[in-house]
Amino acid sequence: MNYKMVLYLLGRILIIMAMLMCLPLSIALVQKEDPSLGFLVAIGVALVFGLIFGVKKPADTTLYAKEGVVVVGAGWLVTSILGALPFYIGSEIPSFVNAFFETVSGFTTTGASVVNNIEGMSHSALFWRSFTQWIGGMGVLVFVLAITPKSEKSQSIHIMRAESPGPQVGKLVSRMRNTARILYGIYISLTALEVVCLIMTGMPLFDSLLTSFSTAGTGGFSVKNASIAAYDSAVVDWIIALFMTLFGINFSLFYLILTGNILQALKSEELHWYLGIVSVAGLLIASNILPLYENFLEALRYAFFQVTSIMTTTGFITADYEQWPVFSQTILIILMFIGACAGSTGGGIKVSRLLILIKSSMRELRQQLRPRSVTAISLENKPVDARVVSGVMAYMSIYAFTFVIAQLLLSLDKFSYVTNLSAVITCINNIGPGLDAVGPVHNFYAYSTLSKVVLSITMLAGRLELMPIVLLFAPSTWRRR
Amino acid sequence: MNYKMVLYLLGRILIIMAMLMCLPLSIALVQKEDPSLGFLVAIGVALVFGLIFGVKKPADTTLYAKEGVVVVGAGWLVTSILGALPFYIGSEIPSFVNAFFETVSGFTTTGASVVNNIEGMSHSALFWRSFTQWIGGMGVLVFVLAITPKSEKSQSIHIMRAESPGPQVGKLVSRMRNTARILYGIYISLTALEVVCLIMTGMPLFDSLLTSFSTAGTGGFSVKNASIAAYDSAVVDWIIALFMTLFGINFSLFYLILTGNILQALKSEELHWYLGIVSVAGLLIASNILPLYENFLEALRYAFFQVTSIMTTTGFITADYEQWPVFSQTILIILMFIGACAGSTGGGIKVSRLLILIKSSMRELRQQLRPRSVTAISLENKPVDARVVSGVMAYMSIYAFTFVIAQLLLSLDKFSYVTNLSAVITCINNIGPGLDAVGPVHNFYAYSTLSKVVLSITMLAGRLELMPIVLLFAPSTWRRR
Repeated sequence: MNYKMVLYLLGRILIIMAMLMCLPLSIALVQKEDPSLGFLVAIGVALVFGLIFGVKKPADTTLYAKEGVVVVGAGWLVTSILGALPFYIGSEIPSFVNAFFETVSGFTTTGASVVNNIEGMSHSALFWRSFTQWIGGMGVLVFVLAITPKSEKSQSIHIMRAESPGPQVGKLVSRMRNTARILYGIYISLTALEVVCLIMTGMPLFDSLLTSFSTAGTGGFSVKNASIAAYDSAVVDWIIALFMTLFGINFSLFYLILTGNILQALKSEELHWYLGIVSVAGLLIASNILPLYENFLEALRYAFFQVTSIMTTTGFITADYEQWPVFSQTILIILMFIGACAGSTGGGIKVSRLLILIKSSMRELRQQLRPRSVTAISLENKPVDARVVSGVMAYMSIYAFTFVIAQLLLSLDKFSYVTNLSAVITCINNIGPGLDAVGPVHNFYAYSTLSKVVLSITMLAGRLELMPIVLLFAPSTWRRR
Repeated sequence: MNYKMVLYLLGRILIIMAMLMCLPLSIALVQKEDPSLGFLVAIGVALVFGLIFGVKKPADTTLYAKEGVVVVGAGWLVTSILGALPFYIGSEIPSFVNAFFETVSGFTTTGASVVNNIEGMSHSALFWRSFTQWIGGMGVLVFVLAITPKSEKSQSIHIMRAESPGPQVGKLVSRMRNTARILYGIYISLTALEVVCLIMTGMPLFDSLLTSFSTAGTGGFSVKNASIAAYDSAVVDWIIALFMTLFGINFSLFYLILTGNILQALKSEELHWYLGIVSVAGLLIASNILPLYENFLEALRYAFFQVTSIMTTTGFITADYEQWPVFSQTILIILMFIGACAGSTGGGIKVSRLLILIKSSMRELRQQLRPRSVTAISLENKPVDARVVSGVMAYMSIYAFTFVIAQLLLSLDKFSYVTNLSAVITCINNIGPGLDAVGPVHNFYAYSTLSKVVLSITMLAGRLELMPIVLLFAPSTWRRR
């Protein structure tokens, strides 16, 4: 393990965090709000450690898969602890575990909250809360890569691989640094476009900006206690539903469109399935909930909002879907597992991973009938490497085991089986709301400290697609060969 | 597709079914009970079709994987329809869908019931109900193989493979026919031993016999409305718990013990995990439910009974576990998925399959850290073939998809999400009782016809480990190349 390089990169992350926190700090100072001190302390701590470790590059800059995994796992943990300080010190969230949970929920773009009165928080705290989701959506380390000097690019694939969602790291352009910059360019442009659209509906600038941050990261933190339902506007609902859908699409498709390859982008197999599932689920739910709403357009509005919100793992709410029929609820729960496209800011298992699973299962079925036939599976018209298939399978197993362990630990708490089940589903898939006591009109406040720590780790494992967090706690990672 | 050979084998199954039904028929005739006519009709139908197709062996006896799969899938379906006739014609279960559900539940050794007053059924119907579980436990076709002429043995591996539980077909002895006979020998002896033990506690012969049938098949049908709780005896509980545990063990281990290789049998990796999980789960639940019972021994008794009953997928009940703390319930739900050992009469995913999953996931994690290392995984000190690993992975995917589709269809019914979820869990894993409206003190009577058909197919898919039932409905199975 190249500890010096790991510490150097962690230092870099802390310096960037300090820079990013200057934004909410300036709001706090201008508005003379309580969290000012919290932001100052956090920035101070980040700068001290950042300047000690993150300035002088070590002589040996070798980075292997192991270091990549450790940097990503430890980076997210450190960032979450640091990001919790402003909430905690500013007494916006007086318990540290709660502040940590809220920050992890922010960076992992989950959107599960422990704050009972969101509207009672200060502007700077609200800004930081939604901003963590915007930062976390694209990935803290992708940001580091975006401003990493050229010379280190060759090895940064290991970091990209450990942090990026989806079964394969798309090779957009051959150079990592450029990839990261292009991704951030698309990300910022789409966010800005949403802000403009929301302002045009009459939503205040502050709300528009923060809502767009949360949409872009597919996070789901809102500035209102009643989430997006508070605006009570069909136009707002449809705009946000559209942008949630866009942020759930693989960003490499936007790159293709930008470079004029529109036809190639529209041919994407994953895109077809993604939009197909959204449409079918939306229409099924709309028909199912029709008796609860005034007309079909109203039913469509609420159905599509909730479908895109849950499928993209954002977690905004416009309707108490626990009042919907069990058929609609069951569809929503299935969507929770599917998640968005690989290479988007959304969480969940991902459409392309499920396509690989379905295709390899179909192949296995064919082989049951004709044991001697050997066929390869393909995705997006390219053959899928056997290593990718076995990686997907292992991902699913670790997913299931993480799921079981988290559920077992939660069951020691005082809640019902459904509450615990949905809490784990919503946290591992980075969605936000669950069912029953953590349903759309409740939050995670009442869970015990142990449960909150378990759910925080579950959210991190879900966002980093399990491997980095599992490996961070594995003894063999730290063993010398 | 060799249709003649498929029909010939289906005919053979029908002849054997007719023979087996003579047992409950004789009870019905002696006791002058209503189902007599039903048994006569069923035997008549079976004999007519059996004698037409199952006597003259076709010239071409070639059996490939495809035929094996079709024979098993169709065989179980035909057997279930035939087995439902006595219940239906005798008006013991006046609706055909209900009779079919009960029979499928019997043959698949699930034990989920639609009968509200079990104690009101006639002796012959009760006998047939438990006897289906005894037949289904070992497999209808394994029985056919046991009496198949030598000349066909070479190709019957395809049938064995399609019907036998577990990731690999154990090659006990090189000849299929002998394997089947040895398995049935062990099965009959253990069943007889349980009957003797139960009679010695003072249980009536009829109850002892039927309870042993259900235990042996890990089925769970009881002759009492209150299941095993009706006997209210600690000795009975412990005896049945012991035999459930035994019937959940891979039968090849009993064969090893019979042939003097006791040490080799005790070294079995799957056995260690199986007994380990039973012990840990039993002790955890006993400590958790201690406040509900008089002393630790009482708590142990109820905890171990329910743990072995659910882990072996039997489904007998001595306590309303819905009154237990959520921690205990969560453990029981996890055990529902694990299931018993491969090569036993139990259902579920199976311990050895989970071991293969865990080991291949661990290998994937290691490879994340050291991408160039290549390691094989081993089970029972033998390397696991890559084909077996990918088969397990595909099994898990098809399991998940079957699960989702069944749940979606059930959600159209009038029950809660938990009821539907647990109904699918308990049916696909062939357990019996679920939670909420299908919990330990309820049954499946109130589900709609559609739901009962869906759950019946789910039970069959679970018992036959998915492939045969999925392939039976796949167009490509029936397409000519």
